[in-house]
Amino acid sequence: MGKQELRTAAKVSLEQPAAEQACLHNRWHPDIPFCGTIKNEEVVKIECVDWTGGQIGNNDSANDVRDVDLTRVHYLTGPFEIETAEPGDVLVVEIQDVQPFQDQPWGFTGVFAKSNGGGFLDELYPDAAKAIWDFEGIFCSSRHIPGVRFAGLIHPGILGCAPSPEVLATWNKREGELISACSHLDRDVALPPNAQSVHVGSGGDDIKEKVGKEGARTIPGRPEHGGNCDIKNLSRGSKVYLPVHVKGAKFSVGDLHFSQGDGEISFCGAIEMAGVITIKFTVMKNGMKDLGMKSPIYVPGPVEPQFGPGRYIYFEGFSVDEHGKQHYMDATVAYRQTSLRVIEYLRRFGYSDYQIYLLLSCAPVQGHVAGIVDIPNACTTMGVPIDIFDFDISPHVKAEKKDMGSCAFAT
Amino acid sequence: MGKQELRTAAKVSLEQPAAEQACLHNRWHPDIPFCGTIKNEEVVKIECVDWTGGQIGNNDSANDVRDVDLTRVHYLTGPFEIETAEPGDVLVVEIQDVQPFQDQPWGFTGVFAKSNGGGFLDELYPDAAKAIWDFEGIFCSSRHIPGVRFAGLIHPGILGCAPSPEVLATWNKREGELISACSHLDRDVALPPNAQSVHVGSGGDDIKEKVGKEGARTIPGRPEHGGNCDIKNLSRGSKVYLPVHVKGAKFSVGDLHFSQGDGEISFCGAIEMAGVITIKFTVMKNGMKDLGMKSPIYVPGPVEPQFGPGRYIYFEGFSVDEHGKQHYMDATVAYRQTSLRVIEYLRRFGYSDYQIYLLLSCAPVQGHVAGIVDIPNACTTMGVPIDIFDFDISPHVKAEKKDMGSCAFAT
Amino acid sequence: MGKQELRTAAKVSLEQPAAEQACLHNRWHPDIPFCGTIKNEEVVKIECVDWTGGQIGNNDSANDVRDVDLTRVHYLTGPFEIETAEPGDVLVVEIQDVQPFQDQPWGFTGVFAKSNGGGFLDELYPDAAKAIWDFEGIFCSSRHIPGVRFAGLIHPGILGCAPSPEVLATWNKREGELISACSHLDRDVALPPNAQSVHVGSGGDDIKEKVGKEGARTIPGRPEHGGNCDIKNLSRGSKVYLPVHVKGAKFSVGDLHFSQGDGEISFCGAIEMAGVITIKFTVMKNGMKDLGMKSPIYVPGPVEPQFGPGRYIYFEGFSVDEHGKQHYMDATVAYRQTSLRVIEYLRRFGYSDYQIYLLLSCAPVQGHVAGIVDIPNACTTMGVPIDIFDFDISPHVKAEKKDMGSCAFAT
Amino acid sequence: MGKQELRTAAKVSLEQPAAEQACLHNRWHPDIPFCGTIKNEEVVKIECVDWTGGQIGNNDSANDVRDVDLTRVHYLTGPFEIETAEPGDVLVVEIQDVQPFQDQPWGFTGVFAKSNGGGFLDELYPDAAKAIWDFEGIFCSSRHIPGVRFAGLIHPGILGCAPSPEVLATWNKREGELISACSHLDRDVALPPNAQSVHVGSGGDDIKEKVGKEGARTIPGRPEHGGNCDIKNLSRGSKVYLPVHVKGAKFSVGDLHFSQGDGEISFCGAIEMAGVITIKFTVMKNGMKDLGMKSPIYVPGPVEPQFGPGRYIYFEGFSVDEHGKQHYMDATVAYRQTSLRVIEYLRRFGYSDYQIYLLLSCAPVQGHVAGIVDIPNACTTMGVPIDIFDFDISPHVKAEKKDMGSCAFAT
Repeated sequence: MGKQELRTAAKVSLEQPAAEQACLHNRWHPDIPFCGTIKNEEVVKIECVDWTGGQIGNNDSANDVRDVDLTRVHYLTGPFEIETAEPGDVLVVEIQDVQPFQDQPWGFTGVFAKSNGGGFLDELYPDAAKAIWDFEGIFCSSRHIPGVRFAGLIHPGILGCAPSPEVLATWNKREGELISACSHLDRDVALPPNAQSVHVGSGGDDIKEKVGKEGARTIPGRPEHGGNCDIKNLSRGSKVYLPVHVKGAKFSVGDLHFSQGDGEISFCGAIEMAGVITIKFTVMKNGMKDLGMKSPIYVPGPVEPQFGPGRYIYFEGFSVDEHGKQHYMDATVAYRQTSLRVIEYLRRFGYSDYQIYLLLSCAPVQGHVAGIVDIPNACTTMGVPIDIFDFDISPHVKAEKKDMGSCAFAT
Repeated sequence: MGKQELRTAAKVSLEQPAAEQACLHNRWHPDIPFCGTIKNEEVVKIECVDWTGGQIGNNDSANDVRDVDLTRVHYLTGPFEIETAEPGDVLVVEIQDVQPFQDQPWGFTGVFAKSNGGGFLDELYPDAAKAIWDFEGIFCSSRHIPGVRFAGLIHPGILGCAPSPEVLATWNKREGELISACSHLDRDVALPPNAQSVHVGSGGDDIKEKVGKEGARTIPGRPEHGGNCDIKNLSRGSKVYLPVHVKGAKFSVGDLHFSQGDGEISFCGAIEMAGVITIKFTVMKNGMKDLGMKSPIYVPGPVEPQFGPGRYIYFEGFSVDEHGKQHYMDATVAYRQTSLRVIEYLRRFGYSDYQIYLLLSCAPVQGHVAGIVDIPNACTTMGVPIDIFDFDISPHVKAEKKDMGSCAFAT
Repeated sequence: MGKQELRTAAKVSLEQPAAEQACLHNRWHPDIPFCGTIKNEEVVKIECVDWTGGQIGNNDSANDVRDVDLTRVHYLTGPFEIETAEPGDVLVVEIQDVQPFQDQPWGFTGVFAKSNGGGFLDELYPDAAKAIWDFEGIFCSSRHIPGVRFAGLIHPGILGCAPSPEVLATWNKREGELISACSHLDRDVALPPNAQSVHVGSGGDDIKEKVGKEGARTIPGRPEHGGNCDIKNLSRGSKVYLPVHVKGAKFSVGDLHFSQGDGEISFCGAIEMAGVITIKFTVMKNGMKDLGMKSPIYVPGPVEPQFGPGRYIYFEGFSVDEHGKQHYMDATVAYRQTSLRVIEYLRRFGYSDYQIYLLLSCAPVQGHVAGIVDIPNACTTMGVPIDIFDFDISPHVKAEKKDMGSCAFAT
Repeated sequence: MGKQELRTAAKVSLEQPAAEQACLHNRWHPDIPFCGTIKNEEVVKIECVDWTGGQIGNNDSANDVRDVDLTRVHYLTGPFEIETAEPGDVLVVEIQDVQPFQDQPWGFTGVFAKSNGGGFLDELYPDAAKAIWDFEGIFCSSRHIPGVRFAGLIHPGILGCAPSPEVLATWNKREGELISACSHLDRDVALPPNAQSVHVGSGGDDIKEKVGKEGARTIPGRPEHGGNCDIKNLSRGSKVYLPVHVKGAKFSVGDLHFSQGDGEISFCGAIEMAGVITIKFTVMKNGMKDLGMKSPIYVPGPVEPQFGPGRYIYFEGFSVDEHGKQHYMDATVAYRQTSLRVIEYLRRFGYSDYQIYLLLSCAPVQGHVAGIVDIPNACTTMGVPIDIFDFDISPHVKAEKKDMGSCAFAT
């Protein structure tokens, strides 16, 4: 008698290429075959590779970040058949735990090169950069950003159920329209389906071809199913309510983060890692109608790192950009300005701008929409926890410039 | 011997028109004369009228909201001369307390009509509406939104130091350029100087004329000094670091809020009230340079209402608007969608959409920038505290529609 | 129309002797006449004197503490008739606010002399001492204990309903038996009825005589009604469920504290003050039976000062006394040892033992029963918040002895 | 390059008897030989058996609890040599993680029979009882106590450094004196050295004999080194400062708890489990003197489960026992009464008293010393978190008796 060890619903290998593993895939499409079945109300473990599928190494060069192949990313584990789930139901996903692999106690944060991926501040910081984070139990620290250490707010960057053909068609249509409308711009505004490096798990060539043509890229989150939401407090103990669009739900998960700040501003911005997530699945029949639900909702768990409200320094940003141009109620511009205000503040201690950019991406900073109605200025704030530093960054203490070493750069 | 009652640096009358009181003003301009002097390191009380200067009544009609005169709003108390403060310094403002007047224990939240003021969701909710909130000690409740009660996160919506002539010129130039660039739109994108109803405290006609031509409107917050930031957790115990642009600082404060949600989405969206703020002022010489500071920063106090992370329901929104159109990384669109998701959820309990719109404006909801890098979708979240309701709104509990009465509407 | 200012159910004077005011009394007895009536579900303000009835002054001598007349203390405001309340009901008391008088923004903490009152550590610290605390909004600080400042966790030290004659008889019997059993000891173990300085509000001589003979002293809290519980987090927003023993409840309240630490170890140990408490009263019919209730229960409010769990230093104490004697599972001995451990720690920074003794009495320290089953050692802990100090008291930081001035002593 | 998996400094077997494993021991004595060496500033994993050494099974009978052999308990892993540690130093132990074994995801809480071990309430509840808890990620639940589920506040019940011969002699003398003084009582007041079932790791017969005669039992915590403190928030992220009494420190750890309530009232009262603890060790030279330290101190970590202050129901207890007898300032009596008040409250929902007794032992209840100076009544409180129940236990909600099954009893 007695409780057995939990079943692992899918195992991954960190040695084998992600593109060869049958329980992984890297597009959203209803035809990608199930990689396993999970009972209603079952608790299972699911292993995940890091979102780059192992392209980034534990070393002191950002060459790998600079040269990352962005068609080979976001390998998700799944899709799983959840028994009894049907379109219109809600899949309740309780995240009971997330852990890095015991024999791989490290992760990375990257600033992508503007020419290959980019990030929120790439106009100002166009080069590739990287920080490696070592895990010590619940804490992490980095040789590339000294003076900082914090407890992880560990979570999956991506989870969701597969789109139905109708939902998928909607995505392709509306994102295609944006791409058309912005064809004069010199940057990508969305990523259309792309056959290169498509991986459909155990699916055959016909499925691969179809998914290559139609399959939604995993980069953005989308309202109908969630996906790549990168929500930092969707952490241990959270219950997520996910819309179901196809029979069996076709649930997938991946992109595990040891920690992330609100916004994940450097794009590869969380502390990315491979690991194991423990989930309880429960089907709520007709849940979408009963909850009046169009997009996922969630209730966080009770164990977030807590610093006390008075242990944050908050910075303000407005929708006036760094060239002095006034934008109309643009919270995105405001949040970029807020980020720059923190960089200006923290560089006084000897950190380079790239170090701070990396740090704000992955440390548990609080990004708030403060005021969104006073024309023409949206106002956002970012709260930086004082206690993640091993020296006092409070504004009433005189800043001393220290030798803070360097993050990893490309050669 | 013994501590005396604190000095009240400025008293206001709730009987006399705001436009006749010498310690009030309603524009930002360096020439508005001081209404009093405060010593460095002094603690004083400052009385404030509500931001509409008493235009809104404690009754069950929203006619007053519909007909509000928006040139006669945002009466601030000040400007005060802070001894020893000079341009380049930082004025440290510690908010030691904020209280409504004892004999006026109520406030209001309004939805402005689209045709007169508008708000974040005015495309969908164009009518005027209102809720009156009664204060019971630290709590508030409303006969217009039954089933809800919460502790105030009490704070000033506006505080800041006067702009220098140069800063003011920058504001007028950049906002003027936006107005010019958007002249084809059918809505105001910014509010230029306007002589109507200008009030400059004890200033004479020449000053009034000058401020009428040049004075910055108080509606938006601005990066150089803060102003109308409407930051909900800039509450009791907070220390705000404000840039000083003119000799003596010319500090003003007003627009007291009993409570507000992130975004203050209905524009007149906090629980607006008249009352008293207790502040300690400290001058930090050369603070702007020492702190590398372009915009205000602050450290919140230790007494925010706290619900525990697991006592929020979070909703997600993306930059796909309600017509299905894909926007590029637009956090403003995403936050609007997030707000709509909450309205859809809460209307299942019998609330009208206007009641919820009012509630999200003023209750302590947490609005976060979740993901801001995954093209093309910005993702924002809004966390609604479960414990402000006297029934259980959790998603695992079946919703029952109740009779929730009505908020106030215009006739 | 509109909300009126709250009714003040009882006003006190700080000029007139407490013993002459009709709405005050200083014993628990069912015959003390009502001083006013409050409706079921009414919210009222009630004014209170400080517990010594004004015997302690805002000065730099502890002579007044040394010479305090302990028969003239604990003047409570009341008793109030709560309409509809009857024996067996529960009176739900929601503490909506507590504030010091605006014109009396200070309070005091005292160490009583061992020869007159004593305290938890009077074997080691037998002399009278005092600290005066100045209030600045939600914060307090003391010229007698520099380097410390904190937000108040403001609450009433005493509240409860009058005992019935039967309950009163039980008290007198059981405390009398303790006194008899301990007559060989050289210290008071309980305080029997005492006619000296009895005050029964508006009651006449016959009542005074009866209460002098029978009336329960207000010093201890008692299980049947609560009374002087000195529970630090029974603060703003708390709902207290009080047993009703007599018709009309005869509710009294007093002994307001601006702040207190768990244990209130110096006896006059909170920051004692005069002020106003705002309460909503609700009668729960047959509540005692329905709740299975023998002693009061309460649910705290949401606005306690919060420091984060990692911002406390915890000290451990065991039931081995300072003479090395082993006691059997004695949590009282353990808590005394815990207190001494903190004194030893903090004296390294230049504080005198008396200053620390005063501080631990009134600052929001957390006193926990940690282990109470491992014979022979009870273990208790005390958590001291780091952030109430304006320098870093963390154990990893080298302590520097500073000039910390002195608390007030008797001449 | 890259971070390696952490070293496991000691492995245990759950198959082999604890008494045969060389890295375990069950007494405190300076002569027990080192089982391994750890460098200063090293991070290691240490495996631990449960404190009964596997005597309790995952089943539905409490026979094993009733018949437990209390001479074969508290097997600790160690002692470890910490390089450079010498008497007078402080060993800083940072608990970076604690986890159950993956293949043993369960634990137990027991009420010991009064005749074999007993507990805090054994006068009233003399029988053996048991609850098995299943772990699901960070949560636990029990088939023996339905309706309850909570996140673990996971920690070691015991950690400390070995006593020097002098310290050990002090322990034996003072506990021996207590035993002598209480020889007329019908219950054990302390546990003297006992040769039965002594285990000294790899130590030979001579050491075994010596330790049998002199070795301190592990049941109580002791002021000089900590030991069995059973402090619930000495959890993940905590830094504990331990006095060093012998060269190499001889650090031991064990008695892992998935969760515990303040007091651990049923004695075998935490959720006892086997598992792995990850610790960073740092030696602080001359730390005892520098910190003025006689007993361990600690700083908790930032990730305790947090419910919000308003999500607890608090119960009060006084030093009047269940027979109506008045005790003098006895916090132990008061805490027992507080526990009984909670039992009376929760039994209204259908739980048996034994179920509640088990629950209060292991759920994260807050036990506070509230008032310790108002003669003759000590007052303690216990806060029970509302959110660990899946129904609403609030006092304003009418209690419904449900079928709550049964905990395990002995046949």
